[in-house]
Amino acid sequence: MSPASSNCLSRTSLESMTIKLLALDADDTLWHNEPIYQNTQKRFRDLLFEYHDPAWVEARLNETEIRNLTHFGYGVKGFVLSMIETAIELSEGRVSAHEIQSIIDMGREMLVEPIELLPGVGDAVKRLGESHSLMLITKGDLLDQESKLARSGLGEHFHAIEIVSEKDPATYTDILARREVSPAEFMMVGNSIRSDILPVIEIGGQAVHIPYATTWVHERVDPETLNEVPFHRLERLEHLPDWLAMRR
Amino acid sequence: MSPASSNCLSRTSLESMTIKLLALDADDTLWHNEPIYQNTQKRFRDLLFEYHDPAWVEARLNETEIRNLTHFGYGVKGFVLSMIETAIELSEGRVSAHEIQSIIDMGREMLVEPIELLPGVGDAVKRLGESHSLMLITKGDLLDQESKLARSGLGEHFHAIEIVSEKDPATYTDILARREVSPAEFMMVGNSIRSDILPVIEIGGQAVHIPYATTWVHERVDPETLNEVPFHRLERLEHLPDWLAMRR
Repeated sequence: MSPASSNCLSRTSLESMTIKLLALDADDTLWHNEPIYQNTQKRFRDLLFEYHDPAWVEARLNETEIRNLTHFGYGVKGFVLSMIETAIELSEGRVSAHEIQSIIDMGREMLVEPIELLPGVGDAVKRLGESHSLMLITKGDLLDQESKLARSGLGEHFHAIEIVSEKDPATYTDILARREVSPAEFMMVGNSIRSDILPVIEIGGQAVHIPYATTWVHERVDPETLNEVPFHRLERLEHLPDWLAMRR
Repeated sequence: MSPASSNCLSRTSLESMTIKLLALDADDTLWHNEPIYQNTQKRFRDLLFEYHDPAWVEARLNETEIRNLTHFGYGVKGFVLSMIETAIELSEGRVSAHEIQSIIDMGREMLVEPIELLPGVGDAVKRLGESHSLMLITKGDLLDQESKLARSGLGEHFHAIEIVSEKDPATYTDILARREVSPAEFMMVGNSIRSDILPVIEIGGQAVHIPYATTWVHERVDPETLNEVPFHRLERLEHLPDWLAMRR
């Protein structure tokens, strides 16, 4: 696959549209995030090893997490609360206070993990910030996402930051309306089909999918949903500046 | 005190400045919030009654909470994690998993507490939304603050919502810069001297303090700090529309 190639699943007239606002996702698009959660989940499974087998623990944690999204939202704090609830439930109340403290400590460690940028991201974001009105749109805990952006060193290249509680069509519509940008002039780039691609296509925007190695179960999408959805796909974010330049 | 009176601690030329952007705080300015935390703290003290006396429990919880703000930020989820840590510490690990589950359940109940508006707020916010470019600026958990606003029924009157991780001079400066509003044309209204008044005055904005019955310990300010700080004080938000109309 050449660096600037794209998989346009359904060729529409997207090529001819100008981009007034370009938005990037953050976690697993700019920097590694899912491995931090998966590493913590492994430690959590080890903690509960004496009660249940790892696959069962993981399945129950995912269930608890998704059930809790309604009230706790995305991010580390809700994840920690879900781990605690799962530990209490799966141990039938036998998990010790010290083990619960160790779960909270795992969360605190997640919040200060070093930010590891994906290949070529630093240079690509700099170039995109020079060529476009560049926005970051990310979901999660407010303070945690702000802190990651600060630690990434990429903040200065973005003209606007939006940390949102959900990436659905209403959220994108609202962001665009406030900036008086029409959906056709908006392009979203990210690793999550569910959050970065489908809702943007639904409101008439453009979207570029940059797959990440792993996808959180909650963000997975039935491949059938993607039939006839017109979006582009690039292998890496570092290819985006050249690809955008070629489209003009 | 007449409904539209104000306490201007240091009379400057504030009266003559027009307001291009009017912002309201949410918790304990539009609706009751601190009582929900205080009620939960009481239940928490009762839970730990066998280990320590209530005043000691409260003091330690406050310490843990403020220490955790750096990583967990404001809001219910961080508060729940602080209660769990305090319970483990004060019970020297003897608190049971079921008691910890009951702390998480307290948090979940806080997140769905009915929103009780302060007197006259519904009508006042409607009028302010008609007369001014009206913004909500609140700190806390993203999803929680959005949910409270939705439940309050006040959302439609605001032209913009800002949920921030900290209300400091940098945050206010950033909000105003993005909207091309000069600080002198900005007025913030809220119950917290520390978050709604002092940082706004510091950047050259206008501020109106509307005291709430109780103030969270973290938001309390040494009265000496207030000498010569030029802000107004109104008894209730419902007096704000008439007071602003009289200033013109």
